[in-house]
Amino acid sequence: MLLVTGSIGIDTVETPFGKSADCLGGSAIYFSLAASNFTEVRFLGVVGEDCPFDLEKIFEGKNVDLSGLEKRVGSKTFRWHGSYAGSMNEADTLLTELNVLAEAPANFPDTYCDSEYVFLANTHPSIQMQILDKVAGKKFVAADTMNLWINTTANELRELISRIDLLFINDGEARLLTKQDNLVGACEDILCMGPEIVILKKGENGVFMASKDGGFFALPAFPAAQVKDPTGAGDSFAGGVMGYIAKHNSTDKDTIRKAIAYGTACASFAISDFSTAGLLKANPQALDSRVQLLRNFVSF
Amino acid sequence: MLLVTGSIGIDTVETPFGKSADCLGGSAIYFSLAASNFTEVRFLGVVGEDCPFDLEKIFEGKNVDLSGLEKRVGSKTFRWHGSYAGSMNEADTLLTELNVLAEAPANFPDTYCDSEYVFLANTHPSIQMQILDKVAGKKFVAADTMNLWINTTANELRELISRIDLLFINDGEARLLTKQDNLVGACEDILCMGPEIVILKKGENGVFMASKDGGFFALPAFPAAQVKDPTGAGDSFAGGVMGYIAKHNSTDKDTIRKAIAYGTACASFAISDFSTAGLLKANPQALDSRVQLLRNFVSF
Repeated sequence: MLLVTGSIGIDTVETPFGKSADCLGGSAIYFSLAASNFTEVRFLGVVGEDCPFDLEKIFEGKNVDLSGLEKRVGSKTFRWHGSYAGSMNEADTLLTELNVLAEAPANFPDTYCDSEYVFLANTHPSIQMQILDKVAGKKFVAADTMNLWINTTANELRELISRIDLLFINDGEARLLTKQDNLVGACEDILCMGPEIVILKKGENGVFMASKDGGFFALPAFPAAQVKDPTGAGDSFAGGVMGYIAKHNSTDKDTIRKAIAYGTACASFAISDFSTAGLLKANPQALDSRVQLLRNFVSF
Repeated sequence: MLLVTGSIGIDTVETPFGKSADCLGGSAIYFSLAASNFTEVRFLGVVGEDCPFDLEKIFEGKNVDLSGLEKRVGSKTFRWHGSYAGSMNEADTLLTELNVLAEAPANFPDTYCDSEYVFLANTHPSIQMQILDKVAGKKFVAADTMNLWINTTANELRELISRIDLLFINDGEARLLTKQDNLVGACEDILCMGPEIVILKKGENGVFMASKDGGFFALPAFPAAQVKDPTGAGDSFAGGVMGYIAKHNSTDKDTIRKAIAYGTACASFAISDFSTAGLLKANPQALDSRVQLLRNFVSF
């Protein structure tokens, strides 16, 4: 069983293709929509009483357990406003209101304790560890992080990284974390911090994976002539990777590589439209087809 | 038969791994060393009387015809001084002395007229076209270019691009040329300018190819934990690509993909040491092995 904890956001996003105001976003949302194409997902997250989204409706018929969705009275939902006007590769954050994310984490249902696969989306590493402590049945734990925590909570982040099996991280963040310009060297340094596997997310340049068993793997991004909104690409990617791994209940080399291909396919749907509209077009058959296209795309 | 025309340089290069002063460089040098692993190369280039390198000695036993190497009395050899102190992905140019490159191109031997495969390394597009006009036997022509010509000789560059079969270009330069942020779109725009194929060079992020027959292909860079000097990586890559194509006398889809893999292998040798020291370690067997490693690296 796959558990995800992360944010639920009210996003406003501007790209050269338009503006989407007060739309659904957040790492746990993108991750769950992607991962539920492969396996059942246990959702853990919190919104305020102002949340305009009917998440039960949005996840209706999808393989997502919402017993860990907390609606906190007296609190406000997380908000983010970003612009990709300069480059589709990186958002300029115009506004962040942490709101409920600055409070206690979501109530953790006892029924989630036996989750074997866990994804801790980007947040304060102490909160990531607090939640991890509650998952008695954990077998394979992945986490994401960002510049802010590398710069402000280095010790807690190192402790978190030593306790996980897989780190998802951007290329720029990997350089920041390791002070290594060479990405292969940066990955080797991260593996020395604890995890079995590190996956670098490089946006339009795809992904690079390094693992302790000595294996490297890389996959370009799916060639998309139109990227409407890159928001959520990384969490959709992680959702595909972890969903595939949990479904196959395996972390062997072949499974991880295929999982990365499915994650790449999920991300390619996510970026094709604003908010969750692109990712909602994904389904198991469409993902299979896209992975086959990816295989042809890189074969020689 | 494969003809290359490009520069021969006296390079001074600084990287975090050291400094290499007054060493051999230049696009025609890197290209020829790479391509001669596959086929005979006809070399066309010019040096001044100050040239400290014994090119006959350097290319001894290699498959390179130097009848197009002109030593011009009264002229000085091209010099370049660059630093990769900030990032291994892009050099800061500290000094450029065009010298003989600002004069007439090298004398063109009549024996080169029947060359079928041609590589026009980066220089003024009018010079590239002047040389192209002399190659009566041309069947498949590739060219490289750079920011300077995109910004200062846009019309001549457009004319050149309309006359070639394959454009090698950096990702940033492709964006500059097409004013398209999306690289798939940028490639489609370049194909509309004339060539059958465009290959984007993305440094540590590998390559992306688009062709008129509708095919896309991408390959990550070889995972190198130590990059000592990236100078010449692009020309070594082009040398591997064009050398493979000329050897197999084919430009079909499968050949182009394998050619890109061999180009990637050549580049990985080039960056492993200063000046030509890395590329000189390449040989047909070592390149075969590296291509096999690349195939394993991307398979899933």
